[in-house]
Amino acid sequence: MSKYESIKQSAYNANMQLPKLGLVIFTFGNVSAADRAEGVFAIKPSGVPYEELSPEKMVIVDFDGKTVEGKLRPSSDTKTHAVLYKHWEKIGGIVHTHSTYATSWAQSQRDIPIFGTTHADHNTVDIPCAPPMSDKMIQGDYEYETGFQIMNCLQERSLSYEEIEMILVGNHAPFTWGKTPEKAVYNSAVLESVAHMALLTEQINPKAPRLKDALIKKHFERKHGPDSYYGQS
Amino acid sequence: MSKYESIKQSAYNANMQLPKLGLVIFTFGNVSAADRAEGVFAIKPSGVPYEELSPEKMVIVDFDGKTVEGKLRPSSDTKTHAVLYKHWEKIGGIVHTHSTYATSWAQSQRDIPIFGTTHADHNTVDIPCAPPMSDKMIQGDYEYETGFQIMNCLQERSLSYEEIEMILVGNHAPFTWGKTPEKAVYNSAVLESVAHMALLTEQINPKAPRLKDALIKKHFERKHGPDSYYGQS
Amino acid sequence: MSKYESIKQSAYNANMQLPKLGLVIFTFGNVSAADRAEGVFAIKPSGVPYEELSPEKMVIVDFDGKTVEGKLRPSSDTKTHAVLYKHWEKIGGIVHTHSTYATSWAQSQRDIPIFGTTHADHNTVDIPCAPPMSDKMIQGDYEYETGFQIMNCLQERSLSYEEIEMILVGNHAPFTWGKTPEKAVYNSAVLESVAHMALLTEQINPKAPRLKDALIKKHFERKHGPDSYYGQS
Amino acid sequence: MSKYESIKQSAYNANMQLPKLGLVIFTFGNVSAADRAEGVFAIKPSGVPYEELSPEKMVIVDFDGKTVEGKLRPSSDTKTHAVLYKHWEKIGGIVHTHSTYATSWAQSQRDIPIFGTTHADHNTVDIPCAPPMSDKMIQGDYEYETGFQIMNCLQERSLSYEEIEMILVGNHAPFTWGKTPEKAVYNSAVLESVAHMALLTEQINPKAPRLKDALIKKHFERKHGPDSYYGQS
Repeated sequence: MSKYESIKQSAYNANMQLPKLGLVIFTFGNVSAADRAEGVFAIKPSGVPYEELSPEKMVIVDFDGKTVEGKLRPSSDTKTHAVLYKHWEKIGGIVHTHSTYATSWAQSQRDIPIFGTTHADHNTVDIPCAPPMSDKMIQGDYEYETGFQIMNCLQERSLSYEEIEMILVGNHAPFTWGKTPEKAVYNSAVLESVAHMALLTEQINPKAPRLKDALIKKHFERKHGPDSYYGQS
Repeated sequence: MSKYESIKQSAYNANMQLPKLGLVIFTFGNVSAADRAEGVFAIKPSGVPYEELSPEKMVIVDFDGKTVEGKLRPSSDTKTHAVLYKHWEKIGGIVHTHSTYATSWAQSQRDIPIFGTTHADHNTVDIPCAPPMSDKMIQGDYEYETGFQIMNCLQERSLSYEEIEMILVGNHAPFTWGKTPEKAVYNSAVLESVAHMALLTEQINPKAPRLKDALIKKHFERKHGPDSYYGQS
Repeated sequence: MSKYESIKQSAYNANMQLPKLGLVIFTFGNVSAADRAEGVFAIKPSGVPYEELSPEKMVIVDFDGKTVEGKLRPSSDTKTHAVLYKHWEKIGGIVHTHSTYATSWAQSQRDIPIFGTTHADHNTVDIPCAPPMSDKMIQGDYEYETGFQIMNCLQERSLSYEEIEMILVGNHAPFTWGKTPEKAVYNSAVLESVAHMALLTEQINPKAPRLKDALIKKHFERKHGPDSYYGQS
Repeated sequence: MSKYESIKQSAYNANMQLPKLGLVIFTFGNVSAADRAEGVFAIKPSGVPYEELSPEKMVIVDFDGKTVEGKLRPSSDTKTHAVLYKHWEKIGGIVHTHSTYATSWAQSQRDIPIFGTTHADHNTVDIPCAPPMSDKMIQGDYEYETGFQIMNCLQERSLSYEEIEMILVGNHAPFTWGKTPEKAVYNSAVLESVAHMALLTEQINPKAPRLKDALIKKHFERKHGPDSYYGQS
């Protein structure tokens, strides 16, 4: 039995949530689950349909993107996962999808404006859309550079990966992360819902104002602040 | 056996309808059921996913928002429910969701115009959108003040909570109510459908006129008037 | 055993298709099935949820709108069905829904333009939207007058009920019909799909042209003309 | 046992995927599967609902459109399939649907712009919309001419059927193809998703730019180039 059994199962479970939540068709997405003690993560194999997945098919990769265990080739987005795990020490899961509304915002190259409390319950800022990568980055080690594009975007906006757990990569699609793979999947579904409602909001009222600061602060703190009173813990 | 068994079961059943009707994902909503004789209501515990709910997990709270029975923390929106039950003596159920279309109208800070008979079957007026709350109200006892914001909005428009059983809170999301929790859930689904069709109506014809008075009166009365001939009673 | 067994079963089956096809929520629709030899039709009882329906609960009504058999009150739209059966001798089924896209076009008070072959496979003309009724008609025998509003609209456009089996009633919602209740339900689903695509077509290209005459003729005739070659009969 | 058993089963399986993927209602679509050695293809019978299909009901037709085996009349679009199989020697499956978003683009008579990597993973160019056919072609052997309209459109744009496996026929609806019927069905679902996101992208940002060349090249090559690293083979 592999010593990576636990993250394989965890990555498998989280991957199987994507089609159930309506976030992917076919093989358009992948989730990984990290084991910080071992310095590795389990990730979906490339191009394998969800109905053919099993925990054993997950591929174990280290934080430099090298395969450690597994017969199948890992997701083509593996290096993006690796570089984020390497630099962001407190995350345990990453999700990439091409979900309909979030991907459309990414294609539009616009940040998603904070219009309401659904957004504020999870983020205090607009959801950033990283600019499309330079030709040099694209022609180089593309997936590796995608990770840096994500990190650079947060840095330029003085945002920490612990404050915001989701981003759009311009022209491409969303990435989300979290302390666990389950949380990262949750963030992907929240992002899709927020992206859908932001478009509808602009359609209903092209002059809809952004959420006022007092509400942003209140909603975020009731879920995440030191005196939070949402949930059971 | 708790003397609140009946409202716990009723609140549980009504909460479980929300994901089935497509009105919530994860924990984005809550339903409560009141027992007027006991002066309490049963409400969903905070942050517990629907698939883990059971009747026993419902929390019993009085009309001042104090927990009377239950091991879990009640929904973070509990005080809004409490204040509405306290002031509106004839309601037996309240629902709060972040359903996609109704929430988008709330984010847009617009009333939903009465465009057709689907709307008129349930309301004779535009569905009101209460303005976002003042910073003072937000920084104070927020959820308690949300209840007052709802009541003030109806009062300013000279509407009774018996005439209209649904409202949008600006920048936030919808609340609905009714004589029973089932009716309040029904109202949330009707609101979502009406909100969807109102947006589509404006997209198909930006100059679409509001419904004429004679039709508003006819449709509302055939369902709700003294000579109503809809339904079996 | 009732001599109306057959139409009760037929009306029941057709009514149960509406929620399956996503055309109704709760009690927002009704189907009837006619027995021409007996001069009656079976129709859904008013306000009864689909999950509580059974063939025995269908109400038998004559073409003047009088209940002939059944313990429950018939649909509040019964008189509209009756007047259409009385005047249109070759129809065997009628459907009324508040389906999302068709109803939104009705609320917009616009005909649905013929943009493509999906539309032309079923109709050679724009799907008519009857104007909202006059106050006098609304305040009179409303549902009865709704039937006349539908008939008048077709007459003004020199359309026969055999050429076009669907209509929008302005500010209200769609009605469809056919030789059988199954065909009328089929027409409601086709109308909803055509209504959805017509809106999208205008959004993608506000100057999208109507379908050219040669294609209208070709597609309609391959399904319905004397030399039709669609289907098995 | 028919020597065409294998393609009948294959065509049946592929046809049954269409309603599961949400690409058709009723009988609005058809898939065929070719046997190159025998010079025939199996195709859905005309006007038969998906729930009544079985492998034996598939009709065997040669590349000139003549029925070789089968009691039912083949799909009314059979000649379009035949002409494409005859001229495109390397395809093994063809799909025609009236899926909502792709059909709306076809009705709009616009190519689908390449806005993101989801599109680029499958095509390096905008998805072409063939112009509506001339009246002469329509009045002639319509379905046969539809095949030529598709081939002419690719030829005018110097595109090979191996480079792009999907097209819109103006005013009508999409056709997709591939080496196998499964791949052709996959392409229909990808097209529908890309069509949906392209509309949303323009709604979010009417000035959204097309994807830059470096990204088009990178994404297509990682799936399809000589050094592709997507999938397991």
